[in-house]
Formats: sequence, structure tokens, C-alpha cells
Amino acid sequence: MARVYAKVSSLFSVFRSIPSNTRHQIRLNSTTPKKLFYTEYGDPLKVVNLTEAKLRDPQSNEVVVKLLAAPVNPADINTIQGKYPSKPELPAVPGNEGVGEIVCVGSDVTNLVEGDHVVPLNPNLGTWQTHLVLPKESVLKVSKKLGLVEAATLTVNPCTAFRMLRDFKELKPGDTVIQNGANSACGQNVIQICRSWGIRTVNIIRDRPNITKLKTYLNELGATHVLTEEELRSTEIFKTGTLAKPKLALNCVGGKNALECLRHLQNGSPMVTYGGMSRDPLTIPTSSLIFKDLQFRGFWMTRWSKENATSADRFEMFSELISMMTSNELKGPAYEMVDFQDYQEALINTLTIKGMIGKKYILKFN
Amino acid sequence: MARVYAKVSSLFSVFRSIPSNTRHQIRLNSTTPKKLFYTEYGDPLKVVNLTEAKLRDPQSNEVVVKLLAAPVNPADINTIQGKYPSKPELPAVPGNEGVGEIVCVGSDVTNLVEGDHVVPLNPNLGTWQTHLVLPKESVLKVSKKLGLVEAATLTVNPCTAFRMLRDFKELKPGDTVIQNGANSACGQNVIQICRSWGIRTVNIIRDRPNITKLKTYLNELGATHVLTEEELRSTEIFKTGTLAKPKLALNCVGGKNALECLRHLQNGSPMVTYGGMSRDPLTIPTSSLIFKDLQFRGFWMTRWSKENATSADRFEMFSELISMMTSNELKGPAYEMVDFQDYQEALINTLTIKGMIGKKYILKFN
Repeated sequence: MARVYAKVSSLFSVFRSIPSNTRHQIRLNSTTPKKLFYTEYGDPLKVVNLTEAKLRDPQSNEVVVKLLAAPVNPADINTIQGKYPSKPELPAVPGNEGVGEIVCVGSDVTNLVEGDHVVPLNPNLGTWQTHLVLPKESVLKVSKKLGLVEAATLTVNPCTAFRMLRDFKELKPGDTVIQNGANSACGQNVIQICRSWGIRTVNIIRDRPNITKLKTYLNELGATHVLTEEELRSTEIFKTGTLAKPKLALNCVGGKNALECLRHLQNGSPMVTYGGMSRDPLTIPTSSLIFKDLQFRGFWMTRWSKENATSADRFEMFSELISMMTSNELKGPAYEMVDFQDYQEALINTLTIKGMIGKKYILKFN
Repeated sequence: MARVYAKVSSLFSVFRSIPSNTRHQIRLNSTTPKKLFYTEYGDPLKVVNLTEAKLRDPQSNEVVVKLLAAPVNPADINTIQGKYPSKPELPAVPGNEGVGEIVCVGSDVTNLVEGDHVVPLNPNLGTWQTHLVLPKESVLKVSKKLGLVEAATLTVNPCTAFRMLRDFKELKPGDTVIQNGANSACGQNVIQICRSWGIRTVNIIRDRPNITKLKTYLNELGATHVLTEEELRSTEIFKTGTLAKPKLALNCVGGKNALECLRHLQNGSPMVTYGGMSRDPLTIPTSSLIFKDLQFRGFWMTRWSKENATSADRFEMFSELISMMTSNELKGPAYEMVDFQDYQEALINTLTIKGMIGKKYILKFN
């Protein structure tokens, strides 16, 4: 450990210009690394614990990343519960996403320097800890102009939205996409990316108190239409001739809601399922398959990222998304920062429906 | 009309060698053309009537076809009922498939001669009549070595089986396909084409009296395994290591049966739906879409034929199927011939479950 600390200390010669309180924070975190961990699958509030961590020396091709922010995603909760198909070996540190600052680089690392902001590129690296030692290939350097929230939540929701809009149907400006769960973190990305690409969106949400406020929020993000499930059943928006029938449906709800959405699709169009919040399966009338030639696919970002870990498509996607984010075309999710040591608050809120459809809870490391 | 009859009569100079009783039959049919027709959608037993028809002169690019045999397919029944998406203009002559003999060709027709056997290439041409006058492009000449039953039922079921096995997943010898409704006309084609291509089939049927007889029949066609729905739930055939998990599922049943089939699919595999005999929709667990990446598509032969009317793929398919049929690798369906004038018997039997899962009723024209 002594060697790492020595290198971290040597940072100060590089960062003479940074304020002394920031330097103090770096030193503090560097000398007391901590991590959340679990040794068995189960209730996150019971099995996840905070402990001091040991920080090992980076090898020549590795970097030491001091985490700045890491979100608590529903999939993290499911992973801890043992309900997710992607099962890390135990004991494990939770967390798939985050943004950190390079505090130390191995001797063979030339593309990254101390102070760079990076996001981890592989799933299950365990971002709910103050420091990560990673191969240099496992991180993506991001501009410091990119907000911490946008950086910390880059690799799951914006990428899911991007790929679903890019990989299942060729869309051109003026085309229409319909999605349910439109207020989900991914749904909000879909709205904004579509606006940027000139694609119209029909956004389905559940009725709720203060529905007008949510509709206004989604309209301001760029939604063409926002309808409740009930409104979708009797809508005339596809009958006026001004809005083309959707060429693509994105489904994170399932059940009757998905059925209502697929009824409006153009013949030959795909519905892509990436979630099932209603816990009801997708029910497809036989005639939709045979006579309308609708196509039903699923999308799982984890698989795509694994299969395309080093593909050009992946880095072009990051570049395009980051460009949209830094030009304010694509905003990060509604969020609340929670101090790392108060992680249980973030877990509780994400376990409840609040975390699914409301704001995202992001652990911040000071 | 006189001109046509003159030409038909002139046939006899060409066919001096054919037996006199056959000549007599041709003359009889030629002089009294008849057709089935309906003027409104409804109960086939009520709306379909037999009447004398008028046979017009062929134009220079047309041929006159004397029908020999035409099957009664479930889709014909649905079309008459007005329940099929493909709605012919009324009044209409029913019938999509058949085989006939050329009795007269227009002056510009050089690729066909009197006596050739042909099958109609377009849907809704109305094969339930003694004679058809068609553009030469609307018929496919078939070898007289091809049995009348095989020829009359060439364009729907064998083609559906062929395309579903060819167009949705690349299959190689040793791969496995699972299908339900395996004793359907299409299912029997699937079994035989797979045997010819070295592909293994797991065939699901409903339990019934004399199940052993049906199992033996399907095994003799080339089925690798035949299981009832109940047997599928607890089968060990995929656990012994000798049979690969299926890469393709073909579904003409829907509901729970389809769900049981999709559970056995390899990740990333498609299920292709071409029927819904249970009348239950397809119910797909969200996890099958997201984590197993299963894909759900539909297939409708009518659409494919329309979109590929003159494609090389289509004529290669006919050629390959006819070759399998003439070499006895691919048998026509179990059938019963019914005299044209007794058409109501064929309708009644096809309207009941007998026609769906048992033998096919074929109208014969004498």
C-alpha cells in the first residue's frame, strides 16, 4: 500500500493549483478507502455492509480511480437480491456505473493522467467503493465538461435508449416511436435522443396525481405526445394524418399496456422489450404476428456491451451521447445525491417504487 | 365461347393417343364449365353455391386451365367467412390452390402447351371451378411425375414449412427445431424437409386416443422425437447431451403450449408463429426477451408470395420441393378426394376440427 500512497501524494506536485480543501479530501479518501460489500444474496438492507478496504498497488497497465459519484440502479438491487441473471462472485462490491478521477497510473499507461475523469466500461466492476484499481482498457476517459451526474449514469440508460433507437429499425426524421414507461430513466433518454434526431415520440405513462406536472416535464424534454394508458385507448392522434403510425415500440411495462402500444404499430414494425415493470408477461395476439408481421425482440444493455466491448459502434455511441450531453440536448436523470456513508437511504428509496419511476439516487464520495 | 370450344376440340388432334374415355371427359367438362361462388361473406354451407360458368376466350398471353384437383384449406373457409385479412372482391370463386391441365393457350404463349400440368401462382384466383383463364405468368408448369395431391397442395403448406426453416435462422445438419401442432399439414412438411436436410425435430402434439398410432406415423415421416404437451413439460431429451437445444421454434398453437416450447430454445433463437389453433395469444415472459434474447416473429405465406412473386428464391423453392416430392422424400398430406359436386361434404369436414388436424379434403374434377 505504501507505494500507492506515495504516488497519490505525489499528485500534489501535479495539482498545485487545486484548492487546498480539495487536496485534503483526496488525501482523506486515499488514506481511508472504504467499500460496500455483500457476502450472500438477499435483502440489500441486510446483506450490504460498509467496511474499510485495502487499496493495492496498480500494475503497470492499471490505473487507480477515486470514485466521485455512483448511481444506485434497480438492476444493482436485483443483483444483490440474487434475482438478476448477471451474478457476480461473492463476496462482491455492488455497483455497475459511476464516474471517478484518476489518482494514479501504472508505468505503461500513457493515454490517461492523474486528474482525468473516467467511467468504468465493464459491468460488475463494483463502483460502490471509494477506489477502484482497473486495467486501463476498463475505463473511458470523459471530458470534465460532462456533468458528474451525466457521467455517472452514462453507460446504462442513455446507451440503452441509443441502441434501441438505432439497432432494431431504420428511423428517419419525421418517423414516430411509441414507448411506455416514458418517465423512466431510459424513457427520458429516448425522448431527448429522438428530439435531437427529429423523431417524434408518443409517450405513455400511468395516470397519477399531478399528472399535468409530469406531462409538462416530459413535453419540455421534447416529447411529441404524452398520454396516459387510458388516453391511449381512445386517442385520435394517429387518425388526423399529421402523425405517422409508429415504426418502433419500446416496452418496459408489459401486460395490457404493451398490448395497447403494439396495436398502433405500422405493419412490419418491432416492439423492443427492455423491462417488465407491471410484472405481467407480454401478450401478443396471433394475428399481430402473422398478418401485421410485428416483431418482438428484447434488449439487454449488459449483453450488448459484452458482445461489443471494443467495437467501434460502442465508442461512436459514447462520443455521440457525450456530445449531446455537453451541448445540453441530453440531460441526466432527475436525481438526488446521497453521501456514500448514507447508502442505506439510497437503497431504501431505490427498493421502493420511488427509485423506479422517480428520481435516481446517486452515491457521492467526498 | 364458340372459339374456345373450337380450340378445345382441336386438342383431340394433338392427343390422338390418349384413351377415348379420357377424351370424353375433357369434352364433357369443356362443354359444361361450372364454378362455386359466393356473393356475401358468411357460413360457407349457406353462402357457397354451385352454378354453371361461362368460359371466355383466352387472350394472346393467356391459358385455359381445366382443373384436376383443388384442396379445401382452413384459410379458404376463413376467407368465405370474411374472417381472413385477404378479402377477395365479391362475388368471388373460392379456392387458392389446385392443379390443372392446360387445354388451350393464347397465340403468344410459347412456354406452355396443351396437356401440361400447372399450378396457379397467385392467391385468390378461385380454384374451385372447372376452368380458369389465366395469364401465362400466373401458372407454374409442374412435372407430370408429381402426384396430383402433391401438386394441388404445393403452394401453401410445403412452402410455408420451407420458408420458416430457411428464413429465420441459419440451420445446419445436426441442429434441432421444435414445433407444436406437429401433425398439422404444415407440421408434417416440416418433419420431412428437416429429415431431408439432416435437421432434428422435436414434435409436440396434443394427447388423444390412439396417440401411439399418430406418434408412429410422425416417426415414420422422419420425426426425431414426438411428445405430447404433458410429456414436453418433464422431458429429459435435452438433458442427455445427445440432442442440441432447439435453434428455432415453429408455433401454430399459441397459449401455454407455445410457452412450453419456447422454454427449451437456445438463447438468441426465434419462435415463428404461423397459426393459433388454441385461440389463445402468445404469452412471453419478459425475461425470455431481455435475458434469453428470444425473438418472436410471424409468417404468412400469402404475404411472402406477394412480396416475392417473381423472385428467384421462389422458383428455387418450388424446384427444391418438387424434387423432394418426386423422389418421395416429401409426401403430400393425408387426404380424401371428394367429387366437385359434393363440395359441401368437403366444407363440412374442413369446418370441423377434422380438417384442421386430420386429413385434407380435396375437390376432384371429372
